[in-house]
Amino acid sequence: MMTGDEYRQSLNDGRRVFLEGDLIADMANHPVFKVPVDAAAKLYDRGFDPTPGAVRDTMRTMKTAEDLRHHASGADDHDMLLGVTSASMMTLLTAADRIESKLPENAARIRAWVKDAQARDIRIVQCITDAKGDRSKRPSQQEDPDAYVRVVERRADGVVIRGAKLHITAASLAHELMTIPTKAMKAGEDDYSIACMVPVNSPGVKIVDVDYAPRHKDQRRFPISSRKHTPDSFVIFDNVFVPNERVFLDGHPEMAATFAHSLGLWERLGGLAGMANTFDALVGFAQLIAEANGLEKIPHIKEKISGMMINATLVRACLDAAIDQCNFTADGQAVPHELYTNAGKYYGAANYPVMVRDLHDISGGSVQTAPSISDLENPEVGHLIRKYMGTKQSVDGDYRTKLFHAIYDYTGGAGGTWAAIANLQSGGGLYAQRIVTAGRYDVEQAKRLALKTAHIEEPA
Amino acid sequence: MMTGDEYRQSLNDGRRVFLEGDLIADMANHPVFKVPVDAAAKLYDRGFDPTPGAVRDTMRTMKTAEDLRHHASGADDHDMLLGVTSASMMTLLTAADRIESKLPENAARIRAWVKDAQARDIRIVQCITDAKGDRSKRPSQQEDPDAYVRVVERRADGVVIRGAKLHITAASLAHELMTIPTKAMKAGEDDYSIACMVPVNSPGVKIVDVDYAPRHKDQRRFPISSRKHTPDSFVIFDNVFVPNERVFLDGHPEMAATFAHSLGLWERLGGLAGMANTFDALVGFAQLIAEANGLEKIPHIKEKISGMMINATLVRACLDAAIDQCNFTADGQAVPHELYTNAGKYYGAANYPVMVRDLHDISGGSVQTAPSISDLENPEVGHLIRKYMGTKQSVDGDYRTKLFHAIYDYTGGAGGTWAAIANLQSGGGLYAQRIVTAGRYDVEQAKRLALKTAHIEEPA
Amino acid sequence: MMTGDEYRQSLNDGRRVFLEGDLIADMANHPVFKVPVDAAAKLYDRGFDPTPGAVRDTMRTMKTAEDLRHHASGADDHDMLLGVTSASMMTLLTAADRIESKLPENAARIRAWVKDAQARDIRIVQCITDAKGDRSKRPSQQEDPDAYVRVVERRADGVVIRGAKLHITAASLAHELMTIPTKAMKAGEDDYSIACMVPVNSPGVKIVDVDYAPRHKDQRRFPISSRKHTPDSFVIFDNVFVPNERVFLDGHPEMAATFAHSLGLWERLGGLAGMANTFDALVGFAQLIAEANGLEKIPHIKEKISGMMINATLVRACLDAAIDQCNFTADGQAVPHELYTNAGKYYGAANYPVMVRDLHDISGGSVQTAPSISDLENPEVGHLIRKYMGTKQSVDGDYRTKLFHAIYDYTGGAGGTWAAIANLQSGGGLYAQRIVTAGRYDVEQAKRLALKTAHIEEPA
Amino acid sequence: MMTGDEYRQSLNDGRRVFLEGDLIADMANHPVFKVPVDAAAKLYDRGFDPTPGAVRDTMRTMKTAEDLRHHASGADDHDMLLGVTSASMMTLLTAADRIESKLPENAARIRAWVKDAQARDIRIVQCITDAKGDRSKRPSQQEDPDAYVRVVERRADGVVIRGAKLHITAASLAHELMTIPTKAMKAGEDDYSIACMVPVNSPGVKIVDVDYAPRHKDQRRFPISSRKHTPDSFVIFDNVFVPNERVFLDGHPEMAATFAHSLGLWERLGGLAGMANTFDALVGFAQLIAEANGLEKIPHIKEKISGMMINATLVRACLDAAIDQCNFTADGQAVPHELYTNAGKYYGAANYPVMVRDLHDISGGSVQTAPSISDLENPEVGHLIRKYMGTKQSVDGDYRTKLFHAIYDYTGGAGGTWAAIANLQSGGGLYAQRIVTAGRYDVEQAKRLALKTAHIEEPA
Repeated sequence: MMTGDEYRQSLNDGRRVFLEGDLIADMANHPVFKVPVDAAAKLYDRGFDPTPGAVRDTMRTMKTAEDLRHHASGADDHDMLLGVTSASMMTLLTAADRIESKLPENAARIRAWVKDAQARDIRIVQCITDAKGDRSKRPSQQEDPDAYVRVVERRADGVVIRGAKLHITAASLAHELMTIPTKAMKAGEDDYSIACMVPVNSPGVKIVDVDYAPRHKDQRRFPISSRKHTPDSFVIFDNVFVPNERVFLDGHPEMAATFAHSLGLWERLGGLAGMANTFDALVGFAQLIAEANGLEKIPHIKEKISGMMINATLVRACLDAAIDQCNFTADGQAVPHELYTNAGKYYGAANYPVMVRDLHDISGGSVQTAPSISDLENPEVGHLIRKYMGTKQSVDGDYRTKLFHAIYDYTGGAGGTWAAIANLQSGGGLYAQRIVTAGRYDVEQAKRLALKTAHIEEPA
Repeated sequence: MMTGDEYRQSLNDGRRVFLEGDLIADMANHPVFKVPVDAAAKLYDRGFDPTPGAVRDTMRTMKTAEDLRHHASGADDHDMLLGVTSASMMTLLTAADRIESKLPENAARIRAWVKDAQARDIRIVQCITDAKGDRSKRPSQQEDPDAYVRVVERRADGVVIRGAKLHITAASLAHELMTIPTKAMKAGEDDYSIACMVPVNSPGVKIVDVDYAPRHKDQRRFPISSRKHTPDSFVIFDNVFVPNERVFLDGHPEMAATFAHSLGLWERLGGLAGMANTFDALVGFAQLIAEANGLEKIPHIKEKISGMMINATLVRACLDAAIDQCNFTADGQAVPHELYTNAGKYYGAANYPVMVRDLHDISGGSVQTAPSISDLENPEVGHLIRKYMGTKQSVDGDYRTKLFHAIYDYTGGAGGTWAAIANLQSGGGLYAQRIVTAGRYDVEQAKRLALKTAHIEEPA
Repeated sequence: MMTGDEYRQSLNDGRRVFLEGDLIADMANHPVFKVPVDAAAKLYDRGFDPTPGAVRDTMRTMKTAEDLRHHASGADDHDMLLGVTSASMMTLLTAADRIESKLPENAARIRAWVKDAQARDIRIVQCITDAKGDRSKRPSQQEDPDAYVRVVERRADGVVIRGAKLHITAASLAHELMTIPTKAMKAGEDDYSIACMVPVNSPGVKIVDVDYAPRHKDQRRFPISSRKHTPDSFVIFDNVFVPNERVFLDGHPEMAATFAHSLGLWERLGGLAGMANTFDALVGFAQLIAEANGLEKIPHIKEKISGMMINATLVRACLDAAIDQCNFTADGQAVPHELYTNAGKYYGAANYPVMVRDLHDISGGSVQTAPSISDLENPEVGHLIRKYMGTKQSVDGDYRTKLFHAIYDYTGGAGGTWAAIANLQSGGGLYAQRIVTAGRYDVEQAKRLALKTAHIEEPA
Repeated sequence: MMTGDEYRQSLNDGRRVFLEGDLIADMANHPVFKVPVDAAAKLYDRGFDPTPGAVRDTMRTMKTAEDLRHHASGADDHDMLLGVTSASMMTLLTAADRIESKLPENAARIRAWVKDAQARDIRIVQCITDAKGDRSKRPSQQEDPDAYVRVVERRADGVVIRGAKLHITAASLAHELMTIPTKAMKAGEDDYSIACMVPVNSPGVKIVDVDYAPRHKDQRRFPISSRKHTPDSFVIFDNVFVPNERVFLDGHPEMAATFAHSLGLWERLGGLAGMANTFDALVGFAQLIAEANGLEKIPHIKEKISGMMINATLVRACLDAAIDQCNFTADGQAVPHELYTNAGKYYGAANYPVMVRDLHDISGGSVQTAPSISDLENPEVGHLIRKYMGTKQSVDGDYRTKLFHAIYDYTGGAGGTWAAIANLQSGGGLYAQRIVTAGRYDVEQAKRLALKTAHIEEPA
C-alpha cells in the first residue's frame, strides 16, 4: 500500500496541471492544491496496512445491504477521490463480465489491470463527459471530429487518442484516467468506441483546473471551503498514446455503452447518500440559526423547518429503500435499487435550491453581511460587532457570527455554488435522472393496475 | 365466525341510520347501501372457518416486516371496514398495556372485550373526531359543552354520554363504535376523558350518512364508484348509556390521549399503502390514455408522465422504508417507521391534486365530455360515437370511452372527490402530518451534523 | 330582437339532441335542460329592445381598455352562450378582413351573414376541436379520414361535410354552429380546410350531451350546480349539406388557421377573467370557512390563506396587465395583451388544484360529510345536526352546513370537476398555453439584456 | 450640484470604515471600494447642472404612471445609492405630512433638512434594521437594551444614540444615514422611538463592510461582479450625538412606524422592477446558452425555458399592474399599487432559486468548470480550451467560455449569492411580503363574492 507521503511524492511525475493560466510546479505545496492533497494523503495513511500484497478495504466489493448502508453513512469519511476509485474498480469488473463472451481478451486485460491497480494502491477518476460540440448532433456528425474523444491512429503496440473530457472532479490529484465513452455509439462510430486507462502523466495529457477555494487574505469567513475543496478538471488528450494492454475497448460501437452502464450501478448511491446528509445538515443549520435568532417558536419558522424536514426525510426514505431493496449481481455484488436511487436524486437535486432558499429566509440578511473574523479581532470594532451580533446571554456574537459564516460558505459563495451545481449536474442533470426513473419504473404493472381499477378487461 | 348472510342479517338490529332525510329500514336491500353491505359480506365469506372458536386472520397481530408488506400490498383486498376493525383491535391491546399499571381493572376490561369481539367476529369503527364547535377553544371552554363527547351522567352500572363523532367512514355498516377522545385533555376535563365501546344499535345512537354513490339512471358511466362506495357517518350520541364493562377510560385526563396515540401506530400504514397504489394507478391511467390518444411519444406528455412516476416512486419509497425500517413494540407487534409513514403521507396528500391535474391534462376534454354507455347503445348515434371516439384500428371507441369514464370516476365527480378529500383529511390534514413528521425527525442529530460541518465546537 | 319566450320556442326546431341515450323531445321543459334554457332566456329578456332593427349590445365590438375591463368584471352576468356568441361575431369580422385580399367573395359572405345574425339575434357556438383520431398523425394521415371534419361532396349549391366536433359547450342550446378548422392545414388537406356556419337543426347534425347537473332527489346539497349548469356537446356532422352562402372557406389550406387565430384574440380574456373571479371566490370561501370553524387566527391557516391570496393576486395582475396593456387592431377593436393573458391562464390552470386542495385542507372533512338539507329537516336528527354543525352563538349549524355544501359543489363532485377540467382544458391544456406564452415572449430582447449584463458584445 | 470628483473627495471626511479588519484610509483609491465609488461618481457627473441652486432630477417626485414606468425601466441606469437617496427624500416628505398635525415643529425640521440636502446634492441611505438581539422579545425586553437603536442621553442641544443598524447597503459610500425605527413601538418604548439624520462621519459612527468583489488575481472570470459591486454595511452608533435640528422624532411611540410605512410606499417598486429585469436576463441567458450548446430545439430544454418565460411574465405583469393601477397621495405623488407590488415580489423571491436552477440545468457543468481567461491565454493549453469549448463554426470557444463565466458570476459565487440573498431579504423576507399581501388583499370583497356564489345570504 501507499502511505500519505508516498502519495504526495507520486504527484511529482511530470503531469501538466494548469490553474488560472499557470502550470503548477509542485502540487503538494501549492497554496490552493495543498488542501485537497493533504486530505487525500490523510486517507492514504488511515487504514494503511504494511503487509506486502495487502489490498485496501475501499478497493473491495460491497456484498450486502449493510455494506451499502455503511458506505452511505459516510462513516469512513470517504473523500470523493476514494469513492470514485472504488466505483471505477467495480465498474471495470462488471464490464469485464459483460464483454467477456464477445471480447475475452479485453476482459482479461481489464482483470489484469485491476489486479495491478490494487497492488499499486492508486487513485483513479472516471473520464466520461466529452466536449460534445454541437449537442444536437451525434459524435460522427460534428464539425470538429474531436468533439468526442476518439482514436486518431492505430499502431501495432497501441492507439493514439484525441479529445477532451470535462467536469472531471480531482483528475489532477489522481494517478489514472478511466476514459470511457459518454454514451451509446452507432455503427460507423468505431473510433469513438474507445475505453482505456491513461496515466495522468502520459505525454499529451493536459489538465486545466478550476477550484473554488477562497482567495481572501483571511479565509476564516469560509470555514468549510477553506478546509475542504476539490478541483474540477478539464482533461485534454492531445494525441495521447495508449499501449494495447490498457485498451479495454476499441471499435465495437454496440458495446460502447457497457462501461457507462456498469458505472451507473454504483456511482449513484454516493450521490444520493451525500444529498441525504446534506439535507439533514441544512435542517440542522436552519434549526441552529432559528434558535440563535430566538425564532425557533415562531409558527412560520417552524412551518419552514418542518417543510425542510419532510424534504430531508423523503430523500432519506429513497436512500433507505434503495439500500434495503438492493439487488445482487450474478457475481454477488450488492447494487442499490435504481428506481429509488434515481427518484431520490431527482427529488433532491430539484429541491435543493428551495431548501437553501428556506434556510436563507430563516437566517436573515446576516448570512450575507456578517463581518469577518478579522473584524471581530479589530480593537476598535471587534467588541461592538460581538455585542450586536449576540442575541442573548446564551447566544454570544462570536458563535452566531461563525454560524452565519458557515451557512454562507455551505450554501453560497464559491463553495456553496459548487455544491449546488454538483448536486444538479452529477449524473447528468435533472432530465437524465427523469429518464432513468422512467426507464426503471414498471409502467406495465401500473397499466394493469389501472385497468383492474377501471374494471376494463386487459386487452389480449 | 360470522358468514356473509349472518352479517347482512346482523344489520337488522334496530339501528337508526338516516340518508338524505330518510330513516333506512333495511340496510342490506337499500339501493345505495346494498353495494357496501354486499362487499363487506363477501369478505365475511372469504376466509370463513366453521371451526368453533376460530379467530379470523385479520383480527391477529402483524409481527414482521413481511406481515406489514403483505398487509400493504392489498393482496387480500381488505376493505376499509376490515382494516379499521383490525387496527382497532391492535389499538385496544396496546392501550391496555399502557394504562395497565395505573388502571389495571380497565386494562382487564379491554382484554375481556377484545376476546369477546374476536369470538363474535364483529366489525368495529373508530369514532375519534368530535364536532369540536369553536376550534380556537378547548373542550371545556365551548359555548355548547357537548361539542366534544362527554359523560353527562354517572350511574352505578355505567355512564351516559352525549356528543357527536364526525367523518366516521362506514359506521352504519359496523357493529360497534370504538369511541375515544380526539386529543389530550387537561385537568378539569375529566368528563371529556371517556373511552368506551358502544354498540351501533344502542338507544340514543343516531347515524346520518352521506354516500358518494352515483344517482344516475344508468350508472355505467361510473364504473368504479357504482361498484365500490362507502358511506361517511355523522354519529350522534344522544344520551347513550354505556355499561361499566364497556367503559375503558372515564376521568383520567392525563391518559386521554393514550388511545389515539396507540391507534396512530397502526392506522397510518394503510393510508400510505393506499396512496402508493393510487399513485401507481394514476400513472397507469396516464400511460393508457396517452397510448389511447396516440400521444405516448410526444415529449411533453412523456415529461408529465415521468414526473408522475417520480411522485409515485417517492411515495412508494416512503412505504418501503416505513416497512423495512419498522420498529417492534415490547409485545412483538411490528409498527411501521413513523417518520417515513408521515412524510410519505404528507407528500402524497400534498401532491395528489397535481397528479390528477396532470392526468386530466394528458387525457384531454373527453374526461368530462365522453358520452355515456346508454348513448353508445342508442341506434341513431351509438355507432357514430364509437366511430369518433376511436383512435385507430387498435384503439376502438368503446374501449376509449370506457377509459375516459374510469378516469372521470376515479379522479372526479362524487367518487373522485371523495378520494381526494379522504387522501387529504385522513389522519388529520396536511398540518397534522407535518407536525408528526417534525416530532419524529431527529433534529438534534441534524444540529450536531451541521455544527460538525461548520467546524463549530458543539456547545457544552 | 328575440325575447326569452321566443328563444324557448326557437329550440323546437327539429334538432336532434341526446342525453344519456334518450332523444330530447322538448328542451325547454326537460328536467335537466330547463335550467340552462331558462338562464339563457333570462338574458334574452334583459336588454331586450323592441325597436325594429335594434342590435344587442353584446353583439358589438369592444374598443377600449375600459370595455375590456367591464366585460371581464362579469358585471353583466354574461353567460357562456352570450360570451361565445359575442366572440364568434368578432372572430368572423376579423377573419373577413384577413382573407379579403385573396378571397373577397368569401369575405363578403361573412359580412352578410354577420349582419343577418345580428338581425335575427341568435346564439352561436364555436365548433373547433375535431375527434382527431390518432393524435400522432396529421388529418390526412388518419386511418379514418373523418377524424377531422371534412368536405365529402361538393355540389353546385353547396358542400356536404362529415366529421365530429367535441367539447362544444352549450351547442344544443344555440342556433348555429361556427365550424372552423382546429389548426393549420398543409397542402393536400384542402378538404379539411372548411369553415362554415351550420344551423343546429340541419339534417344530419346530431348532438350528444353530457351535463353535470345533480341527479339527487333533493338537490339542495348542490346549491350552485343545481342552479347553473351547462351541457357539453359532442356534435356529429353526419353528411350535412351547407349551402354556398354559409361556406366561408373551402379548400385553401394556407388560410385554414386564420379563423382559429382570429378567435384566439378574444376568447382568452373571458377565461382569464373567470379564473381571476374564481380564485377570489376560493379565497373568500377559505376565509369564510376558517371563520366558521373558529380557525381564522391560527398561524398555519393564515399562512395557507395568504398563499391563496398571492395566487389570486398573481392571476388578477395578469388580467389587469392584459387589459391595461391591450393592443388595438387596425379596425379599432381592443384586444387583450396575449402574453399576459396566456401566462395568467397557465398559472391559474396549473395552480387551481392547489387552491382547491388548500381550501379543502382548511375546511376539514365536513366538506365531504356534512349531512343534506333533507337531514336538517328530519324531525329526529335535524336539530341534532344543527347543534353539532354549529360552532358558537355567531355561527349556527344551518349556515355552516350550507357553507360546506357550497364549497363541495363549487370545488368537488360533478360541478367542481366540470370547473376544474374546464379551467385546465379551455384553450387547449397547459401545453398550449405554454406554447403561446413562449411564442409571444420577446426572447430576442431578453438575449440582448443578458449579453449587456454579461458585458459580452452582441454578435453581428 | 456636486461633480463626480467632488463626490470622491467628499468621502475623505474622517469616516471610520472597516473591511476585513482594516480601517480604510482612502475610499476612492482602495482596490475594493474604487469600483463602487467610481460608479457613484459617474452618476454624479451625468446630469450635472452647474446652475446655482439646481436640483437634480432624481431628487424630485414621481407624479404619473409614466414616471413610475420610466423609473422602473432602469433607463437611467440608476444605481442603488441614487435610488435609495430618492426614496429617502420622498419618505421624509410624506412622513412630514403625516406627523404635521401632532408635531408641527418636527415636520418643519424635516422640510428644512430636505431642502438643504437637495442643495448639497448628497447621498443618503436608510438605516432601518436593528441588531434585534432575541427576536422573540420586544425592544424593551432585550437583555442588552442596545439591541435596538435608542436614545441614551438627552441634552439641551440634541440627543445621544446607541445601537447598530444592519444590512445597510452602501452606507460607507453615502453622506448621511436616515436612521428610523424598524417597526411600531409600544408605550414605554419612547427611547426607541427615534428618527434622525446622522452624517456618516459623526464621531462614534463606525461602519464595518462586507463586499462581494472577487479577490482573484485575474478577475475576468467574474465579468459582472468585478465591474459592479456594492458593500453591505454594519453601522454602529457608539454614543453618537445628534443635534436637535436633525432629530425628526424622539419619544412618540405611536408615531414610530410612520417613517417605515412612508418608506414602504416607494421602496418596493425598485425591488420589483429589478426582479422583473433579472428574470428577463435569466431567460436571456438560458436561451443564449441553449443556443450555444446546440440544444435550443430539444423539447425538454424548450419546456424549461418556456417555464422560465412564464415566471418572468408573471413578475412583469405584477410590475405593469402595479404601475398602471398606481394610487396617488394627497400631495400628488404616484405610488405603486401595493398589493401587486408585494405579490410580485413574493413570487419573484420565492421562485428566483428555481429560475437559477433551471438555468444551471440547461447550461451544464461548464458553468462551474469553464477555465479562466488566463487559461485561454496560456500558450500550451489556450488554443485547446478554445477548440473544446467551441460548439460549431458559429459558436466559438471564446464566446461560450465567457458566457459560462457570466452565468456563473450572475447566479453563483459571491456575486450571485449576493443577488440571491438581496432578492430574498430586501423588504424583509418572504414572510414580510406575505403579510403585506394579506393586509392589502380585499378579503371582505372575496367573502361577499363567495357568499353570492354559494347563494347564501350575506349575514347582517
